[in-house]
Amino acid sequence: MAELKGKILAGKVLVKPIIEEKTASGIIIPSSRKDDAFRGEVVLVGSALPDVPMEVSVGDIVVYEKKFVPELTIEGEEYLLLSQDNVLYIE
Amino acid sequence: MAELKGKILAGKVLVKPIIEEKTASGIIIPSSRKDDAFRGEVVLVGSALPDVPMEVSVGDIVVYEKKFVPELTIEGEEYLLLSQDNVLYIE
Amino acid sequence: MAELKGKILAGKVLVKPIIEEKTASGIIIPSSRKDDAFRGEVVLVGSALPDVPMEVSVGDIVVYEKKFVPELTIEGEEYLLLSQDNVLYIE
Amino acid sequence: MAELKGKILAGKVLVKPIIEEKTASGIIIPSSRKDDAFRGEVVLVGSALPDVPMEVSVGDIVVYEKKFVPELTIEGEEYLLLSQDNVLYIE
Amino acid sequence: MAELKGKILAGKVLVKPIIEEKTASGIIIPSSRKDDAFRGEVVLVGSALPDVPMEVSVGDIVVYEKKFVPELTIEGEEYLLLSQDNVLYIE
Amino acid sequence: MAELKGKILAGKVLVKPIIEEKTASGIIIPSSRKDDAFRGEVVLVGSALPDVPMEVSVGDIVVYEKKFVPELTIEGEEYLLLSQDNVLYIE
Amino acid sequence: MAELKGKILAGKVLVKPIIEEKTASGIIIPSSRKDDAFRGEVVLVGSALPDVPMEVSVGDIVVYEKKFVPELTIEGEEYLLLSQDNVLYIE
Repeated sequence: MAELKGKILAGKVLVKPIIEEKTASGIIIPSSRKDDAFRGEVVLVGSALPDVPMEVSVGDIVVYEKKFVPELTIEGEEYLLLSQDNVLYIE
Repeated sequence: MAELKGKILAGKVLVKPIIEEKTASGIIIPSSRKDDAFRGEVVLVGSALPDVPMEVSVGDIVVYEKKFVPELTIEGEEYLLLSQDNVLYIE
Repeated sequence: MAELKGKILAGKVLVKPIIEEKTASGIIIPSSRKDDAFRGEVVLVGSALPDVPMEVSVGDIVVYEKKFVPELTIEGEEYLLLSQDNVLYIE
Repeated sequence: MAELKGKILAGKVLVKPIIEEKTASGIIIPSSRKDDAFRGEVVLVGSALPDVPMEVSVGDIVVYEKKFVPELTIEGEEYLLLSQDNVLYIE
Repeated sequence: MAELKGKILAGKVLVKPIIEEKTASGIIIPSSRKDDAFRGEVVLVGSALPDVPMEVSVGDIVVYEKKFVPELTIEGEEYLLLSQDNVLYIE
Repeated sequence: MAELKGKILAGKVLVKPIIEEKTASGIIIPSSRKDDAFRGEVVLVGSALPDVPMEVSVGDIVVYEKKFVPELTIEGEEYLLLSQDNVLYIE
Repeated sequence: MAELKGKILAGKVLVKPIIEEKTASGIIIPSSRKDDAFRGEVVLVGSALPDVPMEVSVGDIVVYEKKFVPELTIEGEEYLLLSQDNVLYIE
């Protein structure tokens, strides 16, 4: 995946959604409510917000909720701009 | 239960729900409102939030409310991602 | 009443409801709005919240409101988990 | 009036409502909107809340609004549990 | 106007409404929306709230909005209990 | 325009609306949504609010939104009492 | 583009919308929800708000959301006045 040159704001996490269902580490994406939990790779993180450390790093594989999450097309690729608290689990 | 390698965010508590009704320590799960209080074992905790110490530890058995609690399937097991204030009682 | 081994979170108060109407100290439970004010004995208190000292102690008899108060069955006994601000009067 | 042995929480004011209409100091209770302003004697005050000094003292005669004000019967007497900001005027 | 002996809480302003329309300083009370702006003399002020200095003094003539403003009758006179932010202009 | 002798509260800005459409500096008032952006001259400013510096000065020409903006007639002139965040642009 | 002489308030970002769809750096504006993400050039920025550093600079090309964004015509040109958190991505 080409490294992005741009920046995102404090407290934000840009992920590249992972589509396939089951991976080596045994994570099955969809929880009992299929449309709630998704997986993706972190490609960009913003700085920390006051009092809220940034706990996610570029390269992490995360499970996240898609609540109020804008979609972005950058250099032909589709990304999702999460707030850190959309992240449920960092593998 | 296999130890999880991943992480969750500050203020969060990941529990493995306990299904059976009555246990050695005499706790009967369902309160008078059957669907309100549940029991589970804590498998992961996030760090403390500013001004809110993390009072729950891995291994605790907790009674909790299921309000806005996302379900997660990790390595084939079902978990619930609580916020600490979903925890009603730490046995 | 058996002493509880468990813990509750900061700012919380666990009470054992007192059912009978009139007691030695002359407190009549139900105020003019019968379903609003109740009495109970405090069996557990959480630690203080930031800026909000815990003003209630184990053993206090309190008059309280039942707004958003989850019920818990612990070791066969019924309890109510109050927030401190549900407490109207400490006898 | 018997002195109450109990306590109320920080920021609260317990009053004994005064029923008669006109008093020596000339205060006529009901403002143009009869059901809005009432008078009573302060019998108990809580401690100060953070950043909000307790400006009312036991024995003060106050004019107050009855918004979200629980009623309490203690030792056969009827009281109202105000928040300090229900108090409009301290005579 | 007899000086009032009582007190009001922090951040509050007690005014005696001025009824006549035009005064020496040329202030015409009612703005284009007749029922929105009124004039009155300040008879009592509370202390400052944390971070909000009290900018109004006894004796000031103020133009104010009547939003959520309780009316009080004290010693036979009608007053209005403003919050400071009801005050639009201090003449 | 006669200088006003009065005062307004912290964080407020009193403007004299400018009616004509186009001015020397080329500002055309109405944005694409005609009723949203207006121009006026600042005649009075309040002091700064805690953490919010007052960025507008008397004599500035500003473009502003008319959301919840009370109108005032002072000495026969019509003014608008803005909050600073109604100001969109300072020419 | 003529440099603007004016100022905007703390936390605000004034952009000149970019209309054409695809640019040299490969950014395709419209995300899957066509009306959500737009591109523009930053022509003015306000100072930082308390606790929220200003992360955008004049000359940046940004992708932004059009939520509650007033439009302004200045010197015959159309601009949008964003809050910094309308900015999704800084190229």
